[in-house]
Amino acid sequence: MTLGAVILAGGRGTRFWPLSRRARPKQVLDLTGEGTLLARTLARIAPMVADAQQLVVTGPDMVEAVRAEAGNARVVVEPSGRNTLPAIAWGAWEAGRMGADTVIVLPSDHHVANPEALRAALREAVAVAAGGALVTLGIMPTRAETGFGWIEPGEGGKVRRFVEKPPQAVADALLAGGVHLWNAGMFVFRVETLRAALEKHCPRTAAVLARLDAGAPLADVWGQTDATSLDYGVLEHHDDVRVVALDCGWSDVGSWPALEEVLPTASWGAGVCKEIVEVDASGNLVYAAEKLVALVGVHDLVVVDTPDVVLVARREDAQRLREVLATLDARGLTRYT
Amino acid sequence: MTLGAVILAGGRGTRFWPLSRRARPKQVLDLTGEGTLLARTLARIAPMVADAQQLVVTGPDMVEAVRAEAGNARVVVEPSGRNTLPAIAWGAWEAGRMGADTVIVLPSDHHVANPEALRAALREAVAVAAGGALVTLGIMPTRAETGFGWIEPGEGGKVRRFVEKPPQAVADALLAGGVHLWNAGMFVFRVETLRAALEKHCPRTAAVLARLDAGAPLADVWGQTDATSLDYGVLEHHDDVRVVALDCGWSDVGSWPALEEVLPTASWGAGVCKEIVEVDASGNLVYAAEKLVALVGVHDLVVVDTPDVVLVARREDAQRLREVLATLDARGLTRYT
Repeated sequence: MTLGAVILAGGRGTRFWPLSRRARPKQVLDLTGEGTLLARTLARIAPMVADAQQLVVTGPDMVEAVRAEAGNARVVVEPSGRNTLPAIAWGAWEAGRMGADTVIVLPSDHHVANPEALRAALREAVAVAAGGALVTLGIMPTRAETGFGWIEPGEGGKVRRFVEKPPQAVADALLAGGVHLWNAGMFVFRVETLRAALEKHCPRTAAVLARLDAGAPLADVWGQTDATSLDYGVLEHHDDVRVVALDCGWSDVGSWPALEEVLPTASWGAGVCKEIVEVDASGNLVYAAEKLVALVGVHDLVVVDTPDVVLVARREDAQRLREVLATLDARGLTRYT
Repeated sequence: MTLGAVILAGGRGTRFWPLSRRARPKQVLDLTGEGTLLARTLARIAPMVADAQQLVVTGPDMVEAVRAEAGNARVVVEPSGRNTLPAIAWGAWEAGRMGADTVIVLPSDHHVANPEALRAALREAVAVAAGGALVTLGIMPTRAETGFGWIEPGEGGKVRRFVEKPPQAVADALLAGGVHLWNAGMFVFRVETLRAALEKHCPRTAAVLARLDAGAPLADVWGQTDATSLDYGVLEHHDDVRVVALDCGWSDVGSWPALEEVLPTASWGAGVCKEIVEVDASGNLVYAAEKLVALVGVHDLVVVDTPDVVLVARREDAQRLREVLATLDARGLTRYT
């Protein structure tokens, strides 16, 4: 068996604006002073997957920054963002050509406190995938999160059901039940298993792969893929999807406030903020590598300084950065997005 | 009669930190895009006072920046800050040596919307001062301000009483009464009138001037002056102090929020902030000449960006910047103060 890795690095990560930009998305940011999320993702799987079988899929806007953080991995560029299913299908196809028969799919912009726990779960998932299942990793939940999809495991690790982003009451019940897991977008499968599943559930995408087999240029066929997620397009319909539970100190680092959870304590207030002075201020999250930040009488804010932008947001409104970006685009200020 | 001007430019103006610093105090800042407060102060009196009789008194920390904004005025440096009385006494003495017999004393860091109204009041004050009075200008009050001293005028323009910074209830009554005026630190007197008043009320300072007459170096005698304000040291005790009322769109520009009152509407959001995007934000005051500022879900804040500092303060706490500066000094971070 030869193991390959498909690292998905095409996302924009707008929730870390203004640090993240079109050409410098979240995955190539060093948010914690320990290296970029992409570089750390590759370092985590290096003990399992040889360089020659590491593939990073990214988009044309950000390829330069991604290449700089991808080490010896091969970086390939999807012609346009069409959600995860086309990127995973094409990535697995490319990984197959690079000699892999089994593929690990990982997002490039997550945080893992305990890499060895992740690798142990991936090894288990590889063993399960060898039996012909599509395998998803399920994170042991730590809060009643409404922003994630949840997985309901059944007998023998089979996935009984995917629960899409649930309302709060449902999320509370799922957490209390102690059975459901978070869907973190990490998958393991044999290349031929995915191909067969695509033929069954996403024949248009399977046909694209067949045309690639026949030598068609990617740009000619890319638009015929199914622009959906692997979850919606395949996993929710497939009859042999299995889940491997994972407890590895995972975070999707989904917003500025989430940064606090993943920062090494020592670097907070140092690497992330040059100097800080607070007078009657509390609960603020500051990211300003080059500046002294002075906070007076303010609470629960996110303050971010970059060379051309200052952001001041209420902590609870950190997810509304998309509205800022939409406004900037509407005003033609795309140099800031 | 030869008129001289003594412009007091020794203050630190900490309330505009981080834009103002030790070496670049408020009076040499261009807060509104129309020129620095000091340059505009000199421009206002230029029609009345010849260059050769314009004197700017400043401190050693800031002399370079002050000189750059002082045009053809003579800049002199007090060895140390000892409140306004020594600066005014010495300034008037120097102005006398420069040929002036009557002196206008003005702060260098205030805003005047209507300079012609100021000059008209100063001309009236010069006429009153010719009769041997110490004259103070009294601003027609526009709010029940507790941060200023108030002046109670009596018959014939004589000052009946100075009311130090009053409690709110008293300030309300003073405003409602329609009689009291604000003390704005603008004075007019004959040089010999002040000298005689000093001999009576501040003999130590008068003796210093006598030693200067005799050729003593300033540094040798400066420490023997009375370290107090002209108001406390002389005006409150003198028997012939007169007030001339003044309505000239005056502001002491005493804090970041006060900036809004004096800004030309057109420059707000342009000269003072390169670009601003607000999402569910209101009542914020932003000063960021080089940056896009994005505000999300925040209200009534002061946000200031400078090359090495970002300040975020609740609008009501803008006067607490001294606490920030004290903290920085205590932490040895004097490069930011």
